[in-house]
Amino acid sequence: MNEAVALARDLAAAFAGRAAAHDRDGSFPKADIDDLRASGLLGLMVPEPLGGSGADFHTYVQVARELATGSGASALIFNMHASVTGALASVPDELVRALGAPDAFFAARDDVLRRAAGGALLLVAMSEPGVGSRFSAMKTTYERRPDGRGWRIRGHKSFCSGAGHADAYLVVARSSDGVHASQFLVPAGPGVTVEPTWDALGMRATASHDIRLDVEVPDAALLGGVEGLAPVVAQLMPQWLVASYAAVYVGVGQAAIAAAVADLQRRGLTDLPAVRARIGRADAELAGAWAATLTAARAVVDAPGTPDTNAWVFRAKLLAGDAVMSVAASMVEACGGSALRRGHPLERLYRDARCGAVQPATSDVCAQWLGATALGVDLDGPQGVRPW
Amino acid sequence: MNEAVALARDLAAAFAGRAAAHDRDGSFPKADIDDLRASGLLGLMVPEPLGGSGADFHTYVQVARELATGSGASALIFNMHASVTGALASVPDELVRALGAPDAFFAARDDVLRRAAGGALLLVAMSEPGVGSRFSAMKTTYERRPDGRGWRIRGHKSFCSGAGHADAYLVVARSSDGVHASQFLVPAGPGVTVEPTWDALGMRATASHDIRLDVEVPDAALLGGVEGLAPVVAQLMPQWLVASYAAVYVGVGQAAIAAAVADLQRRGLTDLPAVRARIGRADAELAGAWAATLTAARAVVDAPGTPDTNAWVFRAKLLAGDAVMSVAASMVEACGGSALRRGHPLERLYRDARCGAVQPATSDVCAQWLGATALGVDLDGPQGVRPW
Amino acid sequence: MNEAVALARDLAAAFAGRAAAHDRDGSFPKADIDDLRASGLLGLMVPEPLGGSGADFHTYVQVARELATGSGASALIFNMHASVTGALASVPDELVRALGAPDAFFAARDDVLRRAAGGALLLVAMSEPGVGSRFSAMKTTYERRPDGRGWRIRGHKSFCSGAGHADAYLVVARSSDGVHASQFLVPAGPGVTVEPTWDALGMRATASHDIRLDVEVPDAALLGGVEGLAPVVAQLMPQWLVASYAAVYVGVGQAAIAAAVADLQRRGLTDLPAVRARIGRADAELAGAWAATLTAARAVVDAPGTPDTNAWVFRAKLLAGDAVMSVAASMVEACGGSALRRGHPLERLYRDARCGAVQPATSDVCAQWLGATALGVDLDGPQGVRPW
Amino acid sequence: MNEAVALARDLAAAFAGRAAAHDRDGSFPKADIDDLRASGLLGLMVPEPLGGSGADFHTYVQVARELATGSGASALIFNMHASVTGALASVPDELVRALGAPDAFFAARDDVLRRAAGGALLLVAMSEPGVGSRFSAMKTTYERRPDGRGWRIRGHKSFCSGAGHADAYLVVARSSDGVHASQFLVPAGPGVTVEPTWDALGMRATASHDIRLDVEVPDAALLGGVEGLAPVVAQLMPQWLVASYAAVYVGVGQAAIAAAVADLQRRGLTDLPAVRARIGRADAELAGAWAATLTAARAVVDAPGTPDTNAWVFRAKLLAGDAVMSVAASMVEACGGSALRRGHPLERLYRDARCGAVQPATSDVCAQWLGATALGVDLDGPQGVRPW
Repeated sequence: MNEAVALARDLAAAFAGRAAAHDRDGSFPKADIDDLRASGLLGLMVPEPLGGSGADFHTYVQVARELATGSGASALIFNMHASVTGALASVPDELVRALGAPDAFFAARDDVLRRAAGGALLLVAMSEPGVGSRFSAMKTTYERRPDGRGWRIRGHKSFCSGAGHADAYLVVARSSDGVHASQFLVPAGPGVTVEPTWDALGMRATASHDIRLDVEVPDAALLGGVEGLAPVVAQLMPQWLVASYAAVYVGVGQAAIAAAVADLQRRGLTDLPAVRARIGRADAELAGAWAATLTAARAVVDAPGTPDTNAWVFRAKLLAGDAVMSVAASMVEACGGSALRRGHPLERLYRDARCGAVQPATSDVCAQWLGATALGVDLDGPQGVRPW
Repeated sequence: MNEAVALARDLAAAFAGRAAAHDRDGSFPKADIDDLRASGLLGLMVPEPLGGSGADFHTYVQVARELATGSGASALIFNMHASVTGALASVPDELVRALGAPDAFFAARDDVLRRAAGGALLLVAMSEPGVGSRFSAMKTTYERRPDGRGWRIRGHKSFCSGAGHADAYLVVARSSDGVHASQFLVPAGPGVTVEPTWDALGMRATASHDIRLDVEVPDAALLGGVEGLAPVVAQLMPQWLVASYAAVYVGVGQAAIAAAVADLQRRGLTDLPAVRARIGRADAELAGAWAATLTAARAVVDAPGTPDTNAWVFRAKLLAGDAVMSVAASMVEACGGSALRRGHPLERLYRDARCGAVQPATSDVCAQWLGATALGVDLDGPQGVRPW
Repeated sequence: MNEAVALARDLAAAFAGRAAAHDRDGSFPKADIDDLRASGLLGLMVPEPLGGSGADFHTYVQVARELATGSGASALIFNMHASVTGALASVPDELVRALGAPDAFFAARDDVLRRAAGGALLLVAMSEPGVGSRFSAMKTTYERRPDGRGWRIRGHKSFCSGAGHADAYLVVARSSDGVHASQFLVPAGPGVTVEPTWDALGMRATASHDIRLDVEVPDAALLGGVEGLAPVVAQLMPQWLVASYAAVYVGVGQAAIAAAVADLQRRGLTDLPAVRARIGRADAELAGAWAATLTAARAVVDAPGTPDTNAWVFRAKLLAGDAVMSVAASMVEACGGSALRRGHPLERLYRDARCGAVQPATSDVCAQWLGATALGVDLDGPQGVRPW
Repeated sequence: MNEAVALARDLAAAFAGRAAAHDRDGSFPKADIDDLRASGLLGLMVPEPLGGSGADFHTYVQVARELATGSGASALIFNMHASVTGALASVPDELVRALGAPDAFFAARDDVLRRAAGGALLLVAMSEPGVGSRFSAMKTTYERRPDGRGWRIRGHKSFCSGAGHADAYLVVARSSDGVHASQFLVPAGPGVTVEPTWDALGMRATASHDIRLDVEVPDAALLGGVEGLAPVVAQLMPQWLVASYAAVYVGVGQAAIAAAVADLQRRGLTDLPAVRARIGRADAELAGAWAATLTAARAVVDAPGTPDTNAWVFRAKLLAGDAVMSVAASMVEACGGSALRRGHPLERLYRDARCGAVQPATSDVCAQWLGATALGVDLDGPQGVRPW
């Protein structure tokens, strides 16, 4: 097993011990994030020369799954950090240079990654109320400062996992003339106000609050160094928008099966055929989602951004989101009334599980995208499907 | 519409306004029960000469469904009261007389029913930890008092909806020699100790706590006036053990669809084909469960206890328990992230919905029972299925 | 049990004995239809004064289900005849009079119904290739004959069950100016040419061939006596376009369960939990579809054409079409390899079962219609769903 | 792409052109097998020194899937040949030597494999009527010939794919004293009588007839050279008994999606959301099954016979058998009535698809096996699950 994966497995055991309390209180899992920082996993996606592990997406999904078997919420926060660092680290230099990135960008980017490897937590502020993740409909805007140096960003973001606990947020905003959708790295501080709106069914410890932005940032905060990169990055690396969660939800599903097995073993109910059928079918369905996730991850590494790779990315998201839900619901049924009590891990996992298919790209959107693709529809044409 | 059903519909609107708070706090819905009392619905199943409405099971399921659209938890508590009064009221006099009931029984029974019509809340203490509802495995025992007058009952019951709020509990206990499983009506009071164990995923307001029993009751507390009636009543009226919940969960499912429709209308999302497909399929699945529940109820009234009637009873339970789960899960997906927030009715209904298939007879047990029956297996033979 | 239902049950036994051969050869079940004629069931929907039984839709669905347990194909042919006679018999006199029907219409209609009761087989030629049942897109046209007496009808119809074996066909055609969609009763004979295109997966004995029309009919052939009635009748009695099949497919599902039970009993495999679970869940799912079908039928009788009635009609179609498919597929799995052999009734029933959800209104269309209705969408508006 | 896989893809195109006729007539696809022979693919699993390609299981599943996109039946026949050659080639020499195999065995085995590489078709006669594949219940027996040289084998086998077209059959038989279950390679010829019983719902071209055996074979026909190896081989290489079909059914599912896409494109129906959702979900479900199959295959190559590998083998079988069924049924629904006509590829694929979950190990058996394994049950103990 990869060293980082083994590390994640160890951390997951610690996460598991704290998950119930954070779920109950809806509190941020500070100790879990501290563990990640201490272990060096915040540098997982950062290139080795910058102090990180230089892992690829195939390693990432394994790490994320392991962490999620301990706490889905903490794994989701980790996923956000990995998305920012992973995307930053893997946008090809030639591409951004060709698109017009100034030299200063590369130093700024390396500096950010170096800090992430050193323990800075970088999260995401993308979704907006009533908009979701569709860039073209976002109302958060940016404009040049009057003095022509730096940018002013104003807007309202929702579902910002880890809000109030990050060192900086990746913010997607549109130019005030509506032409560009760009990405900025906005440091926490004045002008970044957290509204504690997150009090949810599941994944309660993610602190996915709303954020109000009215903030000025320097030129170097513009990621890629040029405007309009947000759709380019999405096109190039849909895995970070669409499927990096998949691994998390497979881990949640595994935790649900493990919790059911432990419960049934303890109560001596391992010979009931109906129970075995539930466990066996759950095992298989989740394994299918996991195999698809690994296949997607391998494709992302070997052939990033190709139509075939992107199809695997959407498949992984759809299968993981649906599987975790059906698995968790069935495990509750396998264990019966005792699994309904607060304190039983399945009580929490059943709630966490419902969040998977609902996170973008939702299962319904994935199905439309995959169907349109298989039918040979031009995804950018009038009949196309655009998940962002 | 039947008068009682219309009344229930009115009450449901009031229940709905209180449901979120009781769910949040896990508190008993006292005002809901007071409403039921004031409206006279606690006498729904009590014969008219004894002060009640003399309703039949077909009316009961309609009332229960209406109440549940406001609060599944309050409807479940009502269901327990209706089970006790309904079963008491409908055990045929000739039968219990033939089985040896003393004359005193009839007066005692009528007195109980008269008090229920007057507002006394009668609930159920049947399940036991690790035993469920299988009479033959129950560890709660009863024995003659040393002076030969009355009975002493000792044991531990779980999942007692409304524990601490009832005037009396229907308790199933086995004779200390293990020969009989009998039913007693045990008044609340000393010797009936509530252990506040209920803190659950869903149906949080039912106060389904554990109860410890060490109590002496008079002769008249033995229901039917003779020992050993528990299995007889179950055989005769499986609807009260197996399917009276079905109507409650159909009501919960309806509330989920209604909540999704309201949410989607408010947000102007009524033209999305994926959303329409989810609503349409949910509507149909739940309607099938409801049609089966009504069919079962009609059969219970017209031909109680026949094999065909009992099959409909198990079908209704299976279909309602499964439908409410899949409906609630799909409605969350139709509405997306907003439905995950606490305070959104779907957040609660999704949790309530998971309890249906888990309440006995579970969906898996219903399927075994129906399958064995269809295959012509002798249910009392070595290959039979006994849900109680 | 209703007399007609009992009669149907008897006939079903005879149908069952012939079903395999007609399925193998794709031949028309002439003996089955002769049985229906001899039994008087062709007059089921014809008013008593005209020589029929004057049955309502609630009786019809029970008769259709019984027949289908013997042969789904013969029951489908019967369904078509019942649709024509049932719709003719139940269009209110006042309505057609108000719409301008001449006196001559009533005598003509009564004559048709009298002949149907006497044994004339009336079937339907509605669908068109590439069009389905959408009136507005149909290419079959009618126009006044040059001498102003009678009509000339030309077109191409598909999926005409019983083609070549009917005495007359109900044909939907549009006026040559495209304004009206009208219904004609076209006698078999010259100008009505059957193209033997029906060679299908299931329901092979229905002879649902194509028909080419180039025929002149007298004035009296115009049903209702006025042009433009086709959409009015569909609106008024969607049951005949949407849900009369539902009963047939429930019957096919019942036959599948019965075949599986017989097979498993014969082989002594009644104690396998996985098999019991399959039978039990199939029994429940089909029972839900049947209860919904009966509910729809009762509503059609008690409150024809209301929104609530129409919702039940679509629910019944959706549930029956989906249930029969999942039931038949599961029964094959319960019985294993032996059920795959030609000659085993499940081999045929599995193929017949796939046709249900595909017949209009398809399950997907039903779901859209139900979803849009529940969401309060104006079905005739720009976002509406029109299944015909 | 691997050369053998590319070859298989080419052959599949030719298979596809013949599949409809063989399905219609239930005739053996001689030309397909000739193509396999001519292409050298009959030597796929034969070691290179013996004239074959020396492919591993991971290559095998890719080849089998490709072939199945052209004809599921031909791919199943190929699967049987690959099972015999693949198992023979990969039983470790040390193991059989340790178990007592005489030197003569190795030469005999190599000779068989050399002939297979040269074009001899080796198939399987394992299942028995009413027994399936459970070795312990088989009634086919073998005994020493009176002169002590060679064996006499007598029995009745069913579901022998390619019966009458093989050069030799791998036969599992039990010693007449019931102690051993052994495998023999029995040449076609007198004493091996084909009963043409195969006339089936799907996979009609496999000629999976019954075989009656009353035949004498030389010592060298005993595979492994020692008695009692059948369960050892099953334990060691469950992939050939359990999951080699999985790849075939994934290929059938792909053909179904491709047929639906082609149909919908031809009719210009690529923009219907309900259709896209069906295609998209089918694509994802099948992809999950395929990813699991590849994962199983990789595990078989890297860590044959370990518990984790065997779990993947059962998962692949379960997922592929279930996915192909639901995919094919949904694709018919996506295309509607036209897909029900004989001649439309979906009409055949829908029938072929039903065979997957029914072939051993059935989906229900896989679920029990996986569930028991996950629950830590001793599979060889009294509560174990033994699929053979």
